[in-house]
Amino acid sequence: MRTRPGPVTRVQVRAVNGDELAVRPDRVATEEPLEIRIDGAGTLTVTMRTPGHDFELAAGFLHAEGLLGPGGIRRMTYCTDPAVDAAQQYNIVTVALDGPAPELPDRRFAVTSACGVCGKASLDALTLRGCAALPAGGPPVPAEIVYGLPDALRAAQRTFDTTGGLHAAGLFTAAGEPLCVREDVGRHNAVDKLVGWAMLAGRLPLAGHVLMVSGRTSYEITQKALVAGIPIVCAVSAPSSLAVSLAAEFGLTLVGFLRERRFNIYTHPERVSLPQ
Amino acid sequence: MRTRPGPVTRVQVRAVNGDELAVRPDRVATEEPLEIRIDGAGTLTVTMRTPGHDFELAAGFLHAEGLLGPGGIRRMTYCTDPAVDAAQQYNIVTVALDGPAPELPDRRFAVTSACGVCGKASLDALTLRGCAALPAGGPPVPAEIVYGLPDALRAAQRTFDTTGGLHAAGLFTAAGEPLCVREDVGRHNAVDKLVGWAMLAGRLPLAGHVLMVSGRTSYEITQKALVAGIPIVCAVSAPSSLAVSLAAEFGLTLVGFLRERRFNIYTHPERVSLPQ
Repeated sequence: MRTRPGPVTRVQVRAVNGDELAVRPDRVATEEPLEIRIDGAGTLTVTMRTPGHDFELAAGFLHAEGLLGPGGIRRMTYCTDPAVDAAQQYNIVTVALDGPAPELPDRRFAVTSACGVCGKASLDALTLRGCAALPAGGPPVPAEIVYGLPDALRAAQRTFDTTGGLHAAGLFTAAGEPLCVREDVGRHNAVDKLVGWAMLAGRLPLAGHVLMVSGRTSYEITQKALVAGIPIVCAVSAPSSLAVSLAAEFGLTLVGFLRERRFNIYTHPERVSLPQ
Repeated sequence: MRTRPGPVTRVQVRAVNGDELAVRPDRVATEEPLEIRIDGAGTLTVTMRTPGHDFELAAGFLHAEGLLGPGGIRRMTYCTDPAVDAAQQYNIVTVALDGPAPELPDRRFAVTSACGVCGKASLDALTLRGCAALPAGGPPVPAEIVYGLPDALRAAQRTFDTTGGLHAAGLFTAAGEPLCVREDVGRHNAVDKLVGWAMLAGRLPLAGHVLMVSGRTSYEITQKALVAGIPIVCAVSAPSSLAVSLAAEFGLTLVGFLRERRFNIYTHPERVSLPQ
């Protein structure tokens, strides 16, 4: 049976609020790759998206990129190749254009050579690249330290950001000491700058460190933390489903909705020592 | 003289607050392309970023993508090619690796064939693709209608988003009537879905319509609105410098920080009728 991914994924969280801890079900936004193929021309792009309205997404993407000829779209279909895993079929949309297939632009986005994609395949690809799970261990970071991270990030950000338009990423020691803060219009760039700083300073891998980001956590942010060896990722806002899956599988502690002495732990809670 | 772009760009805004209007200087986060080249292998990627810490960004990106061999990085330089326009030289970083140049992955991001990139070049590329400035005209949208858009977007979003993790994009008539709202973990995807919906419904171009987004406005979001013919783009948060440049050059009205009966107009204010 083909199972179609929904826009929301159920997860279990440890909700920490002041001195209280509750274990409860929660929902995160689903993040899954979508591969857009042009019939007769090949794979145009793979984008990380929330499932739903996928034909609209494909049509809108082609329109924005100027790839539609005068005839427009003849047909859009999900993958019907029986060789493609059921979990992936709804992550591949093939667009047949009315008229000759266009030449695909050089400027492609995140094209994989894989036949089909899904969240699981994205995680498998990391393993193939040699990414291993982070080792457990080290003394846990007290909740009190975690509570202080957003203010520490904002304090550093206030110095730089007078625009309200920048994402921030901060690298902290397990004692909550800020080491480096970087800002960018792209949140993935802010994390790249941080990891690049650590690399050029000879500090990689960043075992025992904490990454704090001002926004949400996606697959991309979590993957960058993993490759840099950062075991704890904290965010002011929500994680995506694929960020949670990646963190669960590769041994990262993922914290979200960290604000006003509250946070949720999505994975590997043993690295945070909770109030008794 | 080579001028190096800073992280902040000065703009002039019309700040509307209730019934008051002030024209004042403001600052937006700079957004400019960065092209990362691998010495001996070619262009790896072009990413839209905020200038500053560009070598860290290049190093961190290569690290995250697993492209560094055991020897690591030998040298990083800004473009010194005298044939490249001065405005572009600080938007190109060439990384020389210690050891043989790696084969570039198929999975490249937004690679252009242009020799160098800058915000101006990105706008010129749109013109080359046939994007023309949007026509002026049509009755202006009253500020009172604009004030109502965030609540209308949130009302639609509340129905769907139980996760706190989704960006929303809504399409409205000039009278503030919602036509379609789409959500996604990727804000560009939410806009693609919206434009795809309009395209499949035979509604393009969207002259006389308003796009409202839950987050910030970047080059990418503004470009998608332009190609769809949407003349007014409103956002809860800040625009980037390149979003402002694009809107100014191509005739879009760009509104930001729209919340609690306040907003800033960055470009083409004639499409909003302000309180007297």
